[in-house]
Amino acid sequence: VAYLDCVGWREVAAAIASLAVRGAPAVGLAGAYGVALAAREASGRASGGRTAGPAEVEEAAAALRAVRPTAVNLGWAVDRTLAAWRRGGPEAAAAAAVGLHAEDRDRCEAIAAVGAPLLREGSRVLTVCHTGALATGGCGTALGIIARAHREGRLERLFVCETRPHLQGARLTMWECGQLGIPATLIVDAAAAHVMRTAGVTAVLAGADRIAANGDVANKIGTYALAVLARHHGRPFYVAAPGSTFDAETPDGGAVVVEERDAEEVRGQAAPAGCDVSNPVFDVTPASLVTAYITERGVKEEAAACWT
Amino acid sequence: VAYLDCVGWREVAAAIASLAVRGAPAVGLAGAYGVALAAREASGRASGGRTAGPAEVEEAAAALRAVRPTAVNLGWAVDRTLAAWRRGGPEAAAAAAVGLHAEDRDRCEAIAAVGAPLLREGSRVLTVCHTGALATGGCGTALGIIARAHREGRLERLFVCETRPHLQGARLTMWECGQLGIPATLIVDAAAAHVMRTAGVTAVLAGADRIAANGDVANKIGTYALAVLARHHGRPFYVAAPGSTFDAETPDGGAVVVEERDAEEVRGQAAPAGCDVSNPVFDVTPASLVTAYITERGVKEEAAACWT
Repeated sequence: VAYLDCVGWREVAAAIASLAVRGAPAVGLAGAYGVALAAREASGRASGGRTAGPAEVEEAAAALRAVRPTAVNLGWAVDRTLAAWRRGGPEAAAAAAVGLHAEDRDRCEAIAAVGAPLLREGSRVLTVCHTGALATGGCGTALGIIARAHREGRLERLFVCETRPHLQGARLTMWECGQLGIPATLIVDAAAAHVMRTAGVTAVLAGADRIAANGDVANKIGTYALAVLARHHGRPFYVAAPGSTFDAETPDGGAVVVEERDAEEVRGQAAPAGCDVSNPVFDVTPASLVTAYITERGVKEEAAACWT
Repeated sequence: VAYLDCVGWREVAAAIASLAVRGAPAVGLAGAYGVALAAREASGRASGGRTAGPAEVEEAAAALRAVRPTAVNLGWAVDRTLAAWRRGGPEAAAAAAVGLHAEDRDRCEAIAAVGAPLLREGSRVLTVCHTGALATGGCGTALGIIARAHREGRLERLFVCETRPHLQGARLTMWECGQLGIPATLIVDAAAAHVMRTAGVTAVLAGADRIAANGDVANKIGTYALAVLARHHGRPFYVAAPGSTFDAETPDGGAVVVEERDAEEVRGQAAPAGCDVSNPVFDVTPASLVTAYITERGVKEEAAACWT
């Protein structure tokens, strides 16, 4: 366990870029605190004695937003904090960031409360990537639901896809499961179909980075495969995400820009140097494969019912 | 590129166990040469001056067979070489192994010749694991077909699943593609669904470790997922394998013992020490998801048509 203290907005941006902060809600909160730090620097009250003009706050907001263009939460949280700064200066920006953090904690609790009843006695759940406390300001989204079902005695086992190339499932989800005493089994991503067929998986639960107006879900690469596999095996595929993940500006999944990350992440030590690689970070799951969306406002079978 | 000289059958068994030799046909040939080496040792003519009794040949055959219980080719090639030894001694065993090797070379050519026409002009193929020259005594199975379609000018691109945990796709298939000038793109296993939907994949081609009497296919973990994804996207899913992979003794996929390998292969450096892992090496693809089987005897939609 390592803590990273970021005292300037550029450090926050670098932390988001390097994936030291990851998970849509946590990235959003980091962005909000980043804008609040920029506002403090611009006011001349930065702890390091560094000063900057108001233009830097706007620039910082734009730069923070641009680090992860697919993460709609980031843009949303940055914009809310920036608006607070425009209205009330650095104190208002700081209060906005702290407020967003508290809201996120409550939102996670609400998601867990409404989602946990979907997991009945003896649930065997499959999940991907990481959607726990380290990804949010609270207990998490999909993993918050799973943790609550476990506390309530209904989770028999969780299967965790390791989630190449960054291995967030192996690194983060398995670590949080260890902390929480959740009975969890790590598998390679390619074993999901086999596990679904042979290990009695009762539900697939994933998070979301962006949900389009028509309900298409952009999330970690591999999510779409799990949705197809769940449909093939007749198991429910649930998406858990805060309402802020729903993006009215994105009509459907086709409008989502899928980031390609560095080829070296996939090549690693194994593949020939310089070989061609495609390394999409996200994929898009069509709304037709989503059994239900779980937000802080409840469980809805149709994305249209999730809008504020 | 490293060459491994095995001068005793125990070294051959160790090479199979450590996956220095892998791929069903290559493992079978290694097993055959292993029996031939044991026969030479038993005859007192071992190069190292080491001698052993005839009982050791039977023991060696049993031990070689047991290294990879799911690999039906191994048992088959070991048994053929052992039978030759019983009939004609060490010379016959050596001749049997050499003969099996030559047969495999011809068989690979035949598989490539009958399979390549399935890949039409502009083919964009998805494959998994490694099924090339390094896996056989000849040009390979699925990759042999792909290489031939490439030589004949009809392959636009090959997408290669990296194939965790051993990364045979990244390590071996991408290396062979580089040697052969095949335009190949490496992806993480979890990206297969996204690539199938967005990159115009026209066919999925996989090998097989064992094909049951009813046509169910045991192959590298992840193959089953690709078959489900191909069906969902309306793309053909082909299995290429020598006739010896068809195992009349295995009525269906349910009778295949799926090996679980060491948990540490999956945990690596990323997952918490000692966390629970499931690491199945194979999965079973039901016959209903296989568009056609490609063997040295032709392309057949039904497994029943593939038996000798």
